[in-house]
Amino acid sequence: MSTSSSGQLIGVGTGPGDPELLTVKAVKTLERADVVAYFAKQGKNGNGRTIVGDLLKADVTLLPLYYPVTTEIDKCAPDYVSQITAFYDASAEMVAAHLREGKTVAVLSEGDPLFYGSYMHLHVRLADRFPTEVIPGVTAMSGCWSLAGLPMVQGDDVLSVLPGTMAEAELARRLGDTQAAVIMKVGRNLPKIRRALDAAGRLNEAIYVERGTMANGTMAPLASRDDAEAPYFSLVLVPGWEGRP
Amino acid sequence: MSTSSSGQLIGVGTGPGDPELLTVKAVKTLERADVVAYFAKQGKNGNGRTIVGDLLKADVTLLPLYYPVTTEIDKCAPDYVSQITAFYDASAEMVAAHLREGKTVAVLSEGDPLFYGSYMHLHVRLADRFPTEVIPGVTAMSGCWSLAGLPMVQGDDVLSVLPGTMAEAELARRLGDTQAAVIMKVGRNLPKIRRALDAAGRLNEAIYVERGTMANGTMAPLASRDDAEAPYFSLVLVPGWEGRP
Repeated sequence: MSTSSSGQLIGVGTGPGDPELLTVKAVKTLERADVVAYFAKQGKNGNGRTIVGDLLKADVTLLPLYYPVTTEIDKCAPDYVSQITAFYDASAEMVAAHLREGKTVAVLSEGDPLFYGSYMHLHVRLADRFPTEVIPGVTAMSGCWSLAGLPMVQGDDVLSVLPGTMAEAELARRLGDTQAAVIMKVGRNLPKIRRALDAAGRLNEAIYVERGTMANGTMAPLASRDDAEAPYFSLVLVPGWEGRP
Repeated sequence: MSTSSSGQLIGVGTGPGDPELLTVKAVKTLERADVVAYFAKQGKNGNGRTIVGDLLKADVTLLPLYYPVTTEIDKCAPDYVSQITAFYDASAEMVAAHLREGKTVAVLSEGDPLFYGSYMHLHVRLADRFPTEVIPGVTAMSGCWSLAGLPMVQGDDVLSVLPGTMAEAELARRLGDTQAAVIMKVGRNLPKIRRALDAAGRLNEAIYVERGTMANGTMAPLASRDDAEAPYFSLVLVPGWEGRP
């Protein structure tokens, strides 16, 4: 098959949750895509698929890519790494089969595809073999600080995006070395994150946001939130911009 | 005047440059706004106004807010600070006058309003006085790494957003203390940024992107770009995600 007849791979950012936060370009792409692929847990739709709802064309081919492993396996275990690598390899080949038939394949990615997005696993396996485009999206963090109406960074501020999985002392060090911070992967790390913020002297500025831009989104000062496990879609925001004129 | 008759302030993210990267919500808001305000240099349209083009309703009131000072004045000089503060105060009052008349005022903000956006200067002066909403947008950095097709961050990566105005040694230290980095405000700081990346051992990974997502956008490895001053819309990207499975 010649290159000219091959299809196109398009990574589509679906934004932080509200379907109206898709870009115009994302909507147009989903309306014309022959195949729409998305990662999801077994038997679930996945958030990206839920966000795009009925924007897809009537005769679209849906290609759900179901994760083979659950969070019960240690992510550093050799078993996990080999299973997930084989899964991404196989997923890329399923997408490649459609691309070789000349199809346009849109891959849904919550938020922004190249910013912690699952789409990246397909991109690195396919972008050198097929025409590829990435449509950026509004990130979850932008959705959350906009919901909170929180001025985050201005002028020469440094912003640090930090995983809540990090060791407590390291998290505290980094929180003390930045004007603004976004802490991702809050989940069961919330008590540790609170202690690290306290150690860095930033606890009273921190805002906890849950499901930003979704219909049931909430926000509260972190200091007043209890220690119960946070849902997947939650973030802690520490705003910068101290010297507001 | 009672609160119920007051208008609404809406900060609208216009995305990184391509009009199709506005969100559906931003487009709908601009189509119904009574007043559209935007910051610009004297006699210019400003990038936000250029991006939204003819999306506005026919009888919209345009409210350009022209900066009184130029880059020739030192930004730390007391004259600059007092002039710019007075300008933001006066701008906020011009917007407030429309809000008191019950108008919906959309304020254009390139990229994402609360992420280094000029809209923030109005937000902090008005959000406690009037109903306010912020519509997040695709940031310039997302636009740039999507154009470059550059997988930026994954898993537990730390991302540091750093201003190119920072002292060289400090920039080098931070570049050596992060998985991924975005360097903003490149402009005349390009030779310094290159030296700091070299000192941190990251120069060969760095990608220079100019006017990402605009019609005349370009990208190149930073190592091969000359030292001529970079335009305003340029960024340096240092990708993370070392341990790709």
